[in-house]
Amino acid sequence: MALIVQKYGGSSVADAEKIKNVARRIAKAKREGNQVVAVVSAMGDTTDELIHMAQQISEHPEEREFDVLLSTGEVISSTLLAMALGNLGCKAVSLTGAQAGIHTDSNYSRARILRVDPERITNELNKDNTVIVAGFQGVTSNMDITTLGRGGSDTTAVALAAGLNADMCQIYTDVEGIYTADPRLVPQTSKLDRIGYEEMLEMASYGAKVIHPRAVELGELYNIPILVASTFSDTPGTIICKEASMDMEVKNKVTGIAHDTNVAKITVVGVPDRPGVATAIFDPLARANISIDTIVQNASIGNITDLTFTVARNDLYKAMSIVEPVAKSVRSKQCVADSTLAKISIIGSGMQNTPGYAARMFRTLSEQDINIQLITTSEIRITCIISEERVKDAVRALHKTFELEIA
Amino acid sequence: MALIVQKYGGSSVADAEKIKNVARRIAKAKREGNQVVAVVSAMGDTTDELIHMAQQISEHPEEREFDVLLSTGEVISSTLLAMALGNLGCKAVSLTGAQAGIHTDSNYSRARILRVDPERITNELNKDNTVIVAGFQGVTSNMDITTLGRGGSDTTAVALAAGLNADMCQIYTDVEGIYTADPRLVPQTSKLDRIGYEEMLEMASYGAKVIHPRAVELGELYNIPILVASTFSDTPGTIICKEASMDMEVKNKVTGIAHDTNVAKITVVGVPDRPGVATAIFDPLARANISIDTIVQNASIGNITDLTFTVARNDLYKAMSIVEPVAKSVRSKQCVADSTLAKISIIGSGMQNTPGYAARMFRTLSEQDINIQLITTSEIRITCIISEERVKDAVRALHKTFELEIA
Repeated sequence: MALIVQKYGGSSVADAEKIKNVARRIAKAKREGNQVVAVVSAMGDTTDELIHMAQQISEHPEEREFDVLLSTGEVISSTLLAMALGNLGCKAVSLTGAQAGIHTDSNYSRARILRVDPERITNELNKDNTVIVAGFQGVTSNMDITTLGRGGSDTTAVALAAGLNADMCQIYTDVEGIYTADPRLVPQTSKLDRIGYEEMLEMASYGAKVIHPRAVELGELYNIPILVASTFSDTPGTIICKEASMDMEVKNKVTGIAHDTNVAKITVVGVPDRPGVATAIFDPLARANISIDTIVQNASIGNITDLTFTVARNDLYKAMSIVEPVAKSVRSKQCVADSTLAKISIIGSGMQNTPGYAARMFRTLSEQDINIQLITTSEIRITCIISEERVKDAVRALHKTFELEIA
Repeated sequence: MALIVQKYGGSSVADAEKIKNVARRIAKAKREGNQVVAVVSAMGDTTDELIHMAQQISEHPEEREFDVLLSTGEVISSTLLAMALGNLGCKAVSLTGAQAGIHTDSNYSRARILRVDPERITNELNKDNTVIVAGFQGVTSNMDITTLGRGGSDTTAVALAAGLNADMCQIYTDVEGIYTADPRLVPQTSKLDRIGYEEMLEMASYGAKVIHPRAVELGELYNIPILVASTFSDTPGTIICKEASMDMEVKNKVTGIAHDTNVAKITVVGVPDRPGVATAIFDPLARANISIDTIVQNASIGNITDLTFTVARNDLYKAMSIVEPVAKSVRSKQCVADSTLAKISIIGSGMQNTPGYAARMFRTLSEQDINIQLITTSEIRITCIISEERVKDAVRALHKTFELEIA
């Protein structure tokens, strides 16, 4: 008997028929002899509707209250799924994040899970109940309700799998797995059977939206195999696990191409190249909770340099309002913003210690007449910032260069 | 500084504007130097929408799950109200029933409050926070969420007022107080300044829908004065308290007229008049959770009697399906049902030990040519069951007879 934690996203439980479909899938897994804990997101547009309600009341709602409000979306879908299972003769109980023992810090709207106390879930499983957990939420030591922010339900599922010492975590969504590139851009894209945690982490961080990087990190930390598959078909999905299978590594050392168009670039021109300047710029951004992605500082000419970094587009306005006065105070010449950019990345653990990948990537982009604005790399990833309108051409060309097409 | 528990019903928080209006009222009470705990119902149609969702999933949803689902309605309105208060610069936190320390038994959908643990609320009040509590819900010793059934939010408010030793409980609703009769039936009806708990209990139990009898009982038990007033005006309401003021008692010994059209009558004809028959009939009804109201057994003739009782109309079908086989088994002649009836009651603590009220009531109905089908009385109430279509005439005539019109 295996213990499986499943997660169903908002599009998988968008209406009554879809909830019944999910119930049938869970009941099947139960019939096949497994214990099942299922984590659910809020139904389809529920979260947007709740946000709209709050906006009608207040422009800047209290974070604590906002979290309690949003948490009801997942509570609603979890009870409906438990009812649908009951209707199939499959005993089920829904649990809120608090009841499920998801303990978090008190950073409302982006709480981190501190620990999972699986006692209640274990009790229910021992009573032969299937357990439905409201995703995306937890509770502080003061019994206040928190939400986990982006990727919250994925993170709930993997954290529960770790806390319960489950055999597997299964993320069911509206795509059939992890592809070598976005199938909407590249018709010849192929689905991966397996992918390593590190590679998936780079893929997820650099634009592949199927699973949130927090969940992948947690999976790696506790060595939980994560299946990503479709709620709407029985096609085998992609397993994220300790290592990509060897044959894939031999065949091809690039695993996939990720891209992300949610990129804006800020350049602070003519910054004095002396200690403390970077701190002066990035400290207030961190305090404003703005994530900085790529940071590049050009070689200094006459003690003057340019500092360039990227942020998410929706943070651009806020970031500029913070950076401009700081730039003035350190006597930089000007701040320039550009929000028509995209990131494109090649990712593969096989690239490690193997030269030539960067050169092949740059050559491919150059052949397509695509200008590279910034370059950053990790051990298993090479990322170029390019113009947004060339993303499709870039992904297709790179997919071909690195031989990722279906045979 | 007084500690006030307020309660706002579903029509008081039906939309964003109404929630803002409620927030202004609470902020005003706070500015006037009071500590405020406000209990809210779900917004307008929320509960109906949640019920509809459940019905799309399952014809007979699990009670435990159904309660968790319904409880989200009050959680949503409580967070929105807290946000609206924050927007007015009035610090507020929302609490779920569980967080507010409302401990109940585990009778889902009609849980009873076992105790109130006011620690968290007291802590918040000491931090100068206004506390918004999601009404209608509580939590079992196993941390499962329950709902309190009909009148749940009224009951939450009075229970909190008792648990917090509050100075007053204020029930804000869409009417301006307790009237001598339903203003929709009697144009000359007048609002009572005060009414005793016992009288109010009889009024509420016998058709005045403004406040639920459970809440009145609890108020009496803990001697909490309860104000009933309008959310939408500043007109003084009615105070329910230990004793009606003396001058009212002197002026007029009938306090008000209640009526209730949710009445169905079942008569078991030709029942053998021997021990155990009533038990045989009423035990299975109690087990099926059907409330029996009036019970009348006629004088026995030749050891054969007729047994008549009333139930709520929506219970009639279920009650008949239980009673008919029992009636057969005790060899009664037949069961007859009538669902076109209404109860009409005159209520007043001054009627106690004062003869003549019943006679005046019967005479008034007779003068209107209204037939009385059943009569029951308590110390402070006389109730007649009459045909539903004569209710308006009966209320108006009795209102006149007992001199309740506005001077």
